[in-house]
Amino acid sequence: MTRTLYGLCGEDRERPFSPHVWKIVMALAHKGLDCRFVPLAFTEIPKVEGGATKMVPYLVDGERAVVDSFAIARHLDAAYPDRPTLFAGEGGQATARFVEAFSQTVLHPAIVRIILVDIHDRLAPEDRAYFRKSREAAFGKTLEEVVAAAPAERAAFADKLLPLRYMLKKQPFIGGETPLFADYIVFGALQWARIMSPQPLLEPGDAVSEWFERCLDLHDGLGRAIAPAGLSEAA
Amino acid sequence: MTRTLYGLCGEDRERPFSPHVWKIVMALAHKGLDCRFVPLAFTEIPKVEGGATKMVPYLVDGERAVVDSFAIARHLDAAYPDRPTLFAGEGGQATARFVEAFSQTVLHPAIVRIILVDIHDRLAPEDRAYFRKSREAAFGKTLEEVVAAAPAERAAFADKLLPLRYMLKKQPFIGGETPLFADYIVFGALQWARIMSPQPLLEPGDAVSEWFERCLDLHDGLGRAIAPAGLSEAA
Repeated sequence: MTRTLYGLCGEDRERPFSPHVWKIVMALAHKGLDCRFVPLAFTEIPKVEGGATKMVPYLVDGERAVVDSFAIARHLDAAYPDRPTLFAGEGGQATARFVEAFSQTVLHPAIVRIILVDIHDRLAPEDRAYFRKSREAAFGKTLEEVVAAAPAERAAFADKLLPLRYMLKKQPFIGGETPLFADYIVFGALQWARIMSPQPLLEPGDAVSEWFERCLDLHDGLGRAIAPAGLSEAA
Repeated sequence: MTRTLYGLCGEDRERPFSPHVWKIVMALAHKGLDCRFVPLAFTEIPKVEGGATKMVPYLVDGERAVVDSFAIARHLDAAYPDRPTLFAGEGGQATARFVEAFSQTVLHPAIVRIILVDIHDRLAPEDRAYFRKSREAAFGKTLEEVVAAAPAERAAFADKLLPLRYMLKKQPFIGGETPLFADYIVFGALQWARIMSPQPLLEPGDAVSEWFERCLDLHDGLGRAIAPAGLSEAA
């Protein structure tokens, strides 16, 4: 069966960076499913498969096409029930929606206010004008004005992770002893920052940092295979 | 079988108020289990069953005695597997730990800074000195100094509920279509405030307020049977 995942890349097409696509990259590995990965610039997305999607991740799995990371995770668990589960039951699936909501309303707004210009500078040249125009319209200010508050956002970021830090006193993953899709949801947000910005968000030795390192180690170091921004990447 | 739940009360012994005990009151109803409820003042807890516990909720279930709300919920699901589940699978149980962590690190600290004096004023007379001394030592300031920031905390409270509000666009309960223990965790925090303080925390018409009303309706209006502070209670 042919399986294709469409995701986002910047100027360096070897560095997928979308937080939502990373959730699915990890989910596919969790289930042990091979997949062809197709990196796209933002402005290439509408041209894929005859305009089939406006968003990524977009998974074409044989006859099925699924958009939206949570919908794709549900599809993978339903279509491959004999593979390791992503939710470990209906309660796990429902409660993962709360983790998703935490990531979207607490982590993403903070991260984007820190790394917005770093993202812009790493996009494909043809994406930069689109990105600047759409994000400046959404924020009502220039990209540079948004990240003027980045030092304050970085100083406040450790406190946003309090729920995760508190939970990690009880268990090593949101999924318990082993990771579930809920872990990949939060991992995706932090991996997005790791790949697109040299600004450190996690403090070494913090329980959240140790959890993130465990996630980077999963599935033969799949997340670690992409070097953090500012190291191997071209400046 | 004899089943006894020890919980907290204030001067009015008919008004149990502990957020953690409310989780278990709801959990017992969820599972359809009868239980004798024993209300205690803070200073009565060490005298129970020959000094068996320093904390409530404390459940004595036949031969088993269990302390700590999460441990009690796990016990109930394990001991009564044929009754409605509180976790709906291992993933639901693990991920409920994240909801618990969110409630403990985001909601509880905000709520206590708003209602601390309201709690004090509703305690049994013999509890008030203990409460003032222990809480003032923990905060490093007087109860009255803590709640001087209550108006600002109240103004900021709606934003603390963002993850729940965002999730409620997808499903009516944290448990999905029906409530699970994860719902009772957050319900407990808000019920604590509802019973011990006349200060409103939720805005009418907000999705979180509507979810809380749905929780108050559960199990034949079990949570609603205790009137909110300032209404039927003696001033």
